[in-house]
Amino acid sequence: MLPRGRPRALGAATLLLLLLVVVGFFLFGRDPEYGLRAAATFDGDPNGSRNRSASGLQSLLPPKCEVSPPQLLHVAIVCAGYNSSREVITLVKSVLFYRKNPLHLHLVTDAVARNILETLFRTWMVPAVVIRFYDAGELKPVISWIPNTHYSGLYGLMKLVLPSVLPLSLARVIVLDTDVTFSSDIAELWTLFAHFSDKQVVGLVENQSDWYLGNLWKNHRPWPALGRGFNTGVILLWLDRLRQTGWEQMWTLMAKRQLLTLTATSLADQDIFNAVIKEHPELVHPLPCVWNVQLSDHTLAERCYLEAADLKVIHWNSPKKLRVKNKHAEFFRNLHLTFLGYDGKLLRRELFGCPNQLPPGAEQLQQALAQLDEEEPCFEFRQQQLTVHRVHITFLPHQPPPPRPHDVTLVAQLSMDRLQMLEALCRHWSGPMSLALYLTDAEAQQFLHFVETSPVLSARKDVAYHIVYREGPLYPVNQLRNVALAQALTPYVFLSDIDFLPAYSLYDYLRASIEQLELGSRRKAALVVPVFETLHYRFGFPNSKAELLTLLDAGSLHIFRYHEWPQGHAPTDYAHWREAQAPYHVQWAADYEPYVVVARDCPRYDPRFVGFGWNKVAHIIELDAQEYEFLVLPEAFSIHLPHAPSLDISRFRSSPTYRGCLQALKEEFHQDLSRRYGAAALKYLTALQQSQTRA
Amino acid sequence: MLPRGRPRALGAATLLLLLLVVVGFFLFGRDPEYGLRAAATFDGDPNGSRNRSASGLQSLLPPKCEVSPPQLLHVAIVCAGYNSSREVITLVKSVLFYRKNPLHLHLVTDAVARNILETLFRTWMVPAVVIRFYDAGELKPVISWIPNTHYSGLYGLMKLVLPSVLPLSLARVIVLDTDVTFSSDIAELWTLFAHFSDKQVVGLVENQSDWYLGNLWKNHRPWPALGRGFNTGVILLWLDRLRQTGWEQMWTLMAKRQLLTLTATSLADQDIFNAVIKEHPELVHPLPCVWNVQLSDHTLAERCYLEAADLKVIHWNSPKKLRVKNKHAEFFRNLHLTFLGYDGKLLRRELFGCPNQLPPGAEQLQQALAQLDEEEPCFEFRQQQLTVHRVHITFLPHQPPPPRPHDVTLVAQLSMDRLQMLEALCRHWSGPMSLALYLTDAEAQQFLHFVETSPVLSARKDVAYHIVYREGPLYPVNQLRNVALAQALTPYVFLSDIDFLPAYSLYDYLRASIEQLELGSRRKAALVVPVFETLHYRFGFPNSKAELLTLLDAGSLHIFRYHEWPQGHAPTDYAHWREAQAPYHVQWAADYEPYVVVARDCPRYDPRFVGFGWNKVAHIIELDAQEYEFLVLPEAFSIHLPHAPSLDISRFRSSPTYRGCLQALKEEFHQDLSRRYGAAALKYLTALQQSQTRA
Repeated sequence: MLPRGRPRALGAATLLLLLLVVVGFFLFGRDPEYGLRAAATFDGDPNGSRNRSASGLQSLLPPKCEVSPPQLLHVAIVCAGYNSSREVITLVKSVLFYRKNPLHLHLVTDAVARNILETLFRTWMVPAVVIRFYDAGELKPVISWIPNTHYSGLYGLMKLVLPSVLPLSLARVIVLDTDVTFSSDIAELWTLFAHFSDKQVVGLVENQSDWYLGNLWKNHRPWPALGRGFNTGVILLWLDRLRQTGWEQMWTLMAKRQLLTLTATSLADQDIFNAVIKEHPELVHPLPCVWNVQLSDHTLAERCYLEAADLKVIHWNSPKKLRVKNKHAEFFRNLHLTFLGYDGKLLRRELFGCPNQLPPGAEQLQQALAQLDEEEPCFEFRQQQLTVHRVHITFLPHQPPPPRPHDVTLVAQLSMDRLQMLEALCRHWSGPMSLALYLTDAEAQQFLHFVETSPVLSARKDVAYHIVYREGPLYPVNQLRNVALAQALTPYVFLSDIDFLPAYSLYDYLRASIEQLELGSRRKAALVVPVFETLHYRFGFPNSKAELLTLLDAGSLHIFRYHEWPQGHAPTDYAHWREAQAPYHVQWAADYEPYVVVARDCPRYDPRFVGFGWNKVAHIIELDAQEYEFLVLPEAFSIHLPHAPSLDISRFRSSPTYRGCLQALKEEFHQDLSRRYGAAALKYLTALQQSQTRA
Repeated sequence: MLPRGRPRALGAATLLLLLLVVVGFFLFGRDPEYGLRAAATFDGDPNGSRNRSASGLQSLLPPKCEVSPPQLLHVAIVCAGYNSSREVITLVKSVLFYRKNPLHLHLVTDAVARNILETLFRTWMVPAVVIRFYDAGELKPVISWIPNTHYSGLYGLMKLVLPSVLPLSLARVIVLDTDVTFSSDIAELWTLFAHFSDKQVVGLVENQSDWYLGNLWKNHRPWPALGRGFNTGVILLWLDRLRQTGWEQMWTLMAKRQLLTLTATSLADQDIFNAVIKEHPELVHPLPCVWNVQLSDHTLAERCYLEAADLKVIHWNSPKKLRVKNKHAEFFRNLHLTFLGYDGKLLRRELFGCPNQLPPGAEQLQQALAQLDEEEPCFEFRQQQLTVHRVHITFLPHQPPPPRPHDVTLVAQLSMDRLQMLEALCRHWSGPMSLALYLTDAEAQQFLHFVETSPVLSARKDVAYHIVYREGPLYPVNQLRNVALAQALTPYVFLSDIDFLPAYSLYDYLRASIEQLELGSRRKAALVVPVFETLHYRFGFPNSKAELLTLLDAGSLHIFRYHEWPQGHAPTDYAHWREAQAPYHVQWAADYEPYVVVARDCPRYDPRFVGFGWNKVAHIIELDAQEYEFLVLPEAFSIHLPHAPSLDISRFRSSPTYRGCLQALKEEFHQDLSRRYGAAALKYLTALQQSQTRA
């Protein structure tokens, strides 16, 4: 390509220059560390193939875990309420799945979301993720003057105030809506900051709908925007520059000015961002469309994704969310469902080459697990006891009960195979419930569908469902009970099991009994609810004690486990109960495991009992050791419905090792009892030894 | 950087040149299509950040779906037996998850793997994946002369003969072991072919253990290799060059020569590849270590992955597989578990911008599904009926029963909540079983663990487990039964349900009865096994008909569903049965649904019945319509154990819509009956109408 016939001097100069240009390109045109390796991808292709090497791809990404600042990526999300809290977890899962960098999540939350997410992240223990919460309540006054008709309500506007809310030391942040899903490494998005000019402060993807063109319907008057405007579901926010340019004053003035002629924002923060950008187009850095593929109702996103080599972020910005109609909806839903059902515990993986960034407690846990001996026969029990399950409290919208001094919450736990009990339980118990569900991530979604399609369940807002995510081979029954118990919000709790249906009157009767017995004062009592069982799964549930006694005499009902395990309920003294008109005292005896009503601050269940066996017995011992009186209620009853034996019961019955391990747990429990209660605990040990002699 | 003080002319020439160089760089230095976008990633970074844009990354990958050859990536895998078939599916899932290109899988299989994988891929219906099978049996003679002690046996050697087995038109292929997991797009691996020199024919990652150094133990004499040698778990094979270089002769000679001094290969094909490479190092193109991170027992892989920005492929090349001890085993296991439990149906997503590459049947299915009306009350039923479930037959190692003319297989279906029935069933039925399990991918792994840890189940090789993967809200009971029935390998089948335990003697008794009744000839008969139920889940199972009758009279046993649904079994005539000494005929009547033994070629269950209700009734009608005689066996019995009602039964009971849809299904079924059997089917319609009048 060099022009021919020029003098030699020029030719020599040319060569020199060429050299200089090439050297200069390597020296200055690229990052000294990443440029060279990347350059290797431009090797000539000896085979004439159009393929390009991918080995240099990684080198274009930000350094992973060195000490310089870019290693840590900051992400801010506004999240409020029960449904958004579920949504944000799926978003976070998708980010964690692809990420290779440490993350700092800045979560602006209301009290509900904070409560849920704090518990979740504490129990999730993902390495190299730092979480910080910001109180959305405090921000409300700053934005509540803006009339807004968007479905996200006030929270939609909070992204506007992030520059003043986030720490001053924070220069840049990625801001995400809760309804986006990643299908790529978020570090790739972070690298786009490097493309900002000096003036640009906000990176946004163009809006993929005609909304801002103002021609969607007659008299459609959107807020002003540049062309189609920009979508604020994914934002790169250059915070320190925003602060320097007087962002707060800028958007406030703009909003006030527009509100002189427009009634309210329809799209919350997005209207205001766009109005500001229309006036100051130099502020915006347009991002490639794949970073916010918008699946709104009348989306034009196809123009983006059909040509794109790869989708990076999907945005479910229709109020219909996953149910949005779209030619390729199935494709996008599958990407999203991947993370909805993804087992979050698999995201607890460390980042190689990063300094140790274990969350609180994780290191001790790792050490404790590492010390277990895999060859030990009770290894599975030890491991299960140490397992920290992810917990998602109040998975569904919930209305906490109003404060009432004698109110009582039914507390129970279940897994997927008992879902069909919930409707009947709701019919029998009209009061608040706190239920722990032991589910996989995928099952939690099935459960959600189950509740949504059940008129009975979806009508009840006083039932709180807490998901404890499955992990390990043994059923962590007492850990589940403790989660449900800890989340009960009334002064009293009825500690039940999911296979029991209480008498229809029980809720009212218990509250009346609590009041009459003056449990509200410092009286430590456990009110015993006598339990029965039926072997028929369709039977006429008795409406009164009289009806129950008739069924009992007819042999349609039995005292619960009267034949298999009489000692479990013998102390309740069913003969006495038949005739009783008033509550009566009973004494603890070995293996007693009644269903009781106690104050919410009662002792917790001993989490060492995993799988089948002795989990309630130990709790009742604990109550007795703490000098709870046992008072049997004369009109209370609850009936156990039949079900197939659980896997754990089957294992207990078939495996001597399993029984041996349970025995070891019992002994350890008694040692702990002696330590805590001294001589007073002696009677439990004696009882245990006697029962072993009998067996 | 330009030297100062030079004459102006030179300065002008310089500028011109600079321009030319830059233009030339764009015109010739890069791929015309991909160069420009990639160049954009070399923009100066105005902020001095070390970040680099990722927007150009994609452009380095092979073109996705254009017409030129590189769009389609070829992958060859050797796979034999039950366990490798499970393994390969997880590998394929990981590949599909990240891939964006159409794939052609070349599977060299034995009969077992072919049977499993053909069914699986046919029902999986993944777009843009072509599967071709090659018979490993035919290749055995070519390699069986090589003594080999590797755990993969003869199959480990088959990679050597791929150049002659794969189509001549195929120039390049990626060869994978079944025990690798991808965590990146396989197209990135394919691009490495572009780095081969003209002489290189095979791309391999260095071995990450000291095996070939020959110093692992005293008298350790490995085959020859270059340094640590290369690992053959991931191979880029340049087939046409290999063919040109006389590969077959080359490796055969090499193997023969080595076998003069060495006794056998320890690492199968890998020993031979390495021996050839030692002699011809110019043939090998070393691949970056991240493309085959080897987690063998004494792996040195840490040197690779601790420094790598990203892992691409993990290789579980220890015989301990996932149980291998390794400091970072948990991390790698989590990556692998991601795909073990990943819902394969989510991989049915299309590739955007690719020509339609739907597998056989998928297009019609899509159209049928698209024609359904979501607002129709029975939409869920229609959708469920159309659903093609992925099916993994013989999920666990299985020993087919020897051919015996009167042998009978117990056929049943179950889901996760009935796993605990399996041990008892195995104790009661000593013959072959064919069981369909309706599970999620994650549950299938739990099931595997369950069987492996059960001495009873793992001892039984005559029980075939077929996984039907869950999809949709309604239980596809008859589709499950049909899968189990189709896989029964004996001439007769006992069509049972999972909640029933047969009499201990039933297997022997049925075979004797089949022989006596001469069913082997052209006699079309259904042998009825009378069924009973107990309400106790721990009870002494009767050892004989006499014992059963005693329990029946004592009220411990009942005729199955005698109170709730008497018409289901009334025609069996239990009064007659009590006294019967010989098989007796009974006549069909409305709603009859006995448990029967029939020839394997009996009519299939009607798959339209999903969820609860009428699924067996319809099958018995079909038998009657085809003029099967019903013969009750006098000594046969089976007992139903109690369980909680299933979700589908609960929905049936609580939802009028559900019952309405079932009614519609019944009517359609009768219309079809009339169509097929004409006037002979009239009696069934009359019976239906009468029962509706009664109800």
